[in-house]
Amino acid sequence: MNILIIGGGGVVGQKLAAQLAAKGSLRGAPISRMVLADVVDPAPVNAPFTVQTTRCDIADAASVAQVVTKDTDVIYLLAAIVSAHAEEDFDAGMQINLFGTYNVLERCRSLGTKPVVVFTSSIAVYGGEAQNPLGDHTYPNPQTSYGGQKAIGEILINDYSRKGFVDGRAFRLPTISVRPGKPNRAASSFMSSILREPLNGQEAVCPVDGDFLHYYLSPRKCAENLVKGAELDAIAIGENRAMQMPGKVWSIDQVIAAMTAVVGPEPAKLIRWEAQPEVQAIVSGWRWDIHADKAEALGLEADASFEDNIRYYLEDDKPAA
Amino acid sequence: MNILIIGGGGVVGQKLAAQLAAKGSLRGAPISRMVLADVVDPAPVNAPFTVQTTRCDIADAASVAQVVTKDTDVIYLLAAIVSAHAEEDFDAGMQINLFGTYNVLERCRSLGTKPVVVFTSSIAVYGGEAQNPLGDHTYPNPQTSYGGQKAIGEILINDYSRKGFVDGRAFRLPTISVRPGKPNRAASSFMSSILREPLNGQEAVCPVDGDFLHYYLSPRKCAENLVKGAELDAIAIGENRAMQMPGKVWSIDQVIAAMTAVVGPEPAKLIRWEAQPEVQAIVSGWRWDIHADKAEALGLEADASFEDNIRYYLEDDKPAA
Repeated sequence: MNILIIGGGGVVGQKLAAQLAAKGSLRGAPISRMVLADVVDPAPVNAPFTVQTTRCDIADAASVAQVVTKDTDVIYLLAAIVSAHAEEDFDAGMQINLFGTYNVLERCRSLGTKPVVVFTSSIAVYGGEAQNPLGDHTYPNPQTSYGGQKAIGEILINDYSRKGFVDGRAFRLPTISVRPGKPNRAASSFMSSILREPLNGQEAVCPVDGDFLHYYLSPRKCAENLVKGAELDAIAIGENRAMQMPGKVWSIDQVIAAMTAVVGPEPAKLIRWEAQPEVQAIVSGWRWDIHADKAEALGLEADASFEDNIRYYLEDDKPAA
Repeated sequence: MNILIIGGGGVVGQKLAAQLAAKGSLRGAPISRMVLADVVDPAPVNAPFTVQTTRCDIADAASVAQVVTKDTDVIYLLAAIVSAHAEEDFDAGMQINLFGTYNVLERCRSLGTKPVVVFTSSIAVYGGEAQNPLGDHTYPNPQTSYGGQKAIGEILINDYSRKGFVDGRAFRLPTISVRPGKPNRAASSFMSSILREPLNGQEAVCPVDGDFLHYYLSPRKCAENLVKGAELDAIAIGENRAMQMPGKVWSIDQVIAAMTAVVGPEPAKLIRWEAQPEVQAIVSGWRWDIHADKAEALGLEADASFEDNIRYYLEDDKPAA
């Protein structure tokens, strides 16, 4: 079982790699090799099998051909230009999110090996005239280019699967929080910062009100779901290979209360409430009445509580003091 | 008002060109020039303004740049590799239906002129797990590559419009019948042949049963709707620029009865009923519980009856004996 993680240097890619290393097998077969590919050299991961790290630019078909090879059994396609970045740099979003996905699928088609392809879509596909409740069968009317490119990726995954070129599955990720590391260029970045920074003794700014609702999933559960996602039986998935990954709706007040419940009242005092109308203008259009019926029926899971989510961050990611 | 019709040599393109020639204006301004572009030289159309015909291959960005120019006000993007053809030749479908659409939109973006772009999508976007009733906000889960590529075109039209690169609108065409001319490579070709050939004194084969239901629109009404489609106010369209074009559901028995009502019983006797399991296998998956709420509210129309549809063919298209 040879696994390729494109976007293997990112938060989700690294977490997924660590879980696969611990598990040692996928789809019932022992893992013999795992390749982590990204635009910059990914950090290596300790594993009881060979782990290679390499650079890959999926906008370049030749670069894709170097990492997707005849013996690649499972491809995780996690690489993306995220929301605010794709909104600023339209070409970068199109080249990576649309043509990059196409290049990976075309490479699989030319090899004729029908690998499993696990594609990460996003709740950013929801928006515009799509009506609540939102879920597996919602018309994608995204209000960002990132969301549009992800919706196109879902259609490509479906069609390449239907044609038998790949065995694809696409999961719309909830907003991932608590993300370790630095803020990124996603407009949702503050949804991790307001927890991560205080948990590390640093100030953070909350640009929205405490009653702001959103749909969340922890990095640990996200990676677990991606492992399960690769193992799903294609027949069980049905004709729509794209589905919502389970998450849960919490308010800002609730996620902060969960942090306080786990670590006490001090971190929450490091949050500066500073309304930012330009951030509010973006995120007020975001959707949260989201349901993951198919994925839940197939065994994928949300976090049981946001307290769990805080604990996962402390156990998995908090830097040593 | 300068108009470009890409796919101007096709059945819908020619009909649209003739209607625009008769109307003489679009979006409240007199038409000064109309360019008909296609992969083979389009037939010219008589008009009280300049009409140019030219070859264009939308898979080639340089070819697109020659027809989409700074003074192009309205672009009709009708060119496509149709369903059965795109299913046989995956690359041709991707190059024309996906990358061709991208090339046209990118050319508009690079010019910065924000032309109106009228894109023809298709009821082929419906399928798979999409649940009845089907319409403007149905999740695209097509079961053909053609349908997938059209669904991607809708998303691109929406995003390029949202970004202000074009003023786009996409219409999912019903099956067009009675199509003049020869059978084409669409799997729906028989839905015109069983009427057109008998109306011209020729035999035709009906490969499905008389109770087979489908969603139809005449070429004349389709072209009228495309004229109206270009004239719609962008604000009135809303956040989803893609919508179902109105059509109506009829059984094979009903469309044949309509022909008999208009021209008498002889033509229907030229239909040979010859069940073709391989055709039935394709079309039995097709969807017909389709509703065009937005377009109807905006003033687009279906045929009032299939008798009208037969009369339109006789008036507009039947070759002289």
